[in-house]
Amino acid sequence: MSDYKDFEMPLAEAMTTQRAIRRLKPDPVDDALVLQLIELALKGPTAQNQQQWEFIVVKDPEVKRKLGRMNRIMWRLYRPFARRAARNDVKAEKLNRATEWGVEHFEDVPVYVVACFRGNRFAFPPVVAASTYGSIFPAVQNLLLAARAVGLGANINTMPLWSNFAARRILGLPFGLTPCVMIPLGWPIGRYGPTTRRPVGEVTSLDQYGNRAWQQA
Amino acid sequence: MSDYKDFEMPLAEAMTTQRAIRRLKPDPVDDALVLQLIELALKGPTAQNQQQWEFIVVKDPEVKRKLGRMNRIMWRLYRPFARRAARNDVKAEKLNRATEWGVEHFEDVPVYVVACFRGNRFAFPPVVAASTYGSIFPAVQNLLLAARAVGLGANINTMPLWSNFAARRILGLPFGLTPCVMIPLGWPIGRYGPTTRRPVGEVTSLDQYGNRAWQQA
Repeated sequence: MSDYKDFEMPLAEAMTTQRAIRRLKPDPVDDALVLQLIELALKGPTAQNQQQWEFIVVKDPEVKRKLGRMNRIMWRLYRPFARRAARNDVKAEKLNRATEWGVEHFEDVPVYVVACFRGNRFAFPPVVAASTYGSIFPAVQNLLLAARAVGLGANINTMPLWSNFAARRILGLPFGLTPCVMIPLGWPIGRYGPTTRRPVGEVTSLDQYGNRAWQQA
Repeated sequence: MSDYKDFEMPLAEAMTTQRAIRRLKPDPVDDALVLQLIELALKGPTAQNQQQWEFIVVKDPEVKRKLGRMNRIMWRLYRPFARRAARNDVKAEKLNRATEWGVEHFEDVPVYVVACFRGNRFAFPPVVAASTYGSIFPAVQNLLLAARAVGLGANINTMPLWSNFAARRILGLPFGLTPCVMIPLGWPIGRYGPTTRRPVGEVTSLDQYGNRAWQQA
């Protein structure tokens, strides 16, 4: 497990070609590979180096079916808003179609990783929320980058976990663990490739918000 | 800005040697490098690809002084608890000393990056909190990994932002932007190097929490 020779992609290449891959083949993914992804996730920083996390690897069709049902319930509620927001927006429409695909093929995805954190706090005030979620999402991002490096499709999905109560019951989680995100893993039908972003100078200020010191004329 | 030749470290090497580097030299860091770090941060995923973020680069001594004051107030409150928790725990004591160093030398750090998200929501229920914070911390982790790749010291600090009200005033942020973390950047006095983590099988379950399918005997 300590050999990471499959993860030697240059850092910048992994970052600049990371995409949410939602269309995944049903072909199996080796457990050993999934565990390596989680192992690299564990390298992420946590507040006070507490490492208060748990990961559930979901492969059982029955568990998938129950989480897929939760996912469908939320998507049916949310879909009309997503569709309205996507009118005349080609990119948002494309994203909706990919989400829809993920909902319809939920049970066909070979593996899910559910990332959980210990604690069931009200995430308030914001400084507490930042500590809590800032101690799980760096790990999640490591997992996604590692998946990208080996060409394995992945994305972040929170919809199946909208009811923490139901998610805890389905996954046998004690009250002290909060399921945070669900990451579908599988060999991609689509492709990884470069993403587009606004120029850095448009979202960066110097010393005071709005002082766009690096904005291109 | 589109040339990332300084960030070609293999992904796994960057991840397995990422550490919170708190002791930083006062030597300046090139703006161009800081902007490249933020540019790679922007490649991180966001919920619905909304990219609702802003980054403030802090170099002005007066702005640092005000944030350093907020940091000291919180550390003085928190320190007794941190010290008590660290009794008989060499690692935690070491972490406390590094934190103390960061508090004392706050104004000497050459650059800070404050990552903010748009929105000022109560982060509740957890699924909403996960979307909100899950749309900023992947970017933060990209920034930290990119810093590691070029040997620049960095860590996550939330203490100076404990009062969102004060932080907004100091940074000129409108109410609709929430400052989330403050990342000190500087050339390290210490060194990057391998970290230790519990074995993956001890924090990973199969299908149901507690089913330790991959735990070593």
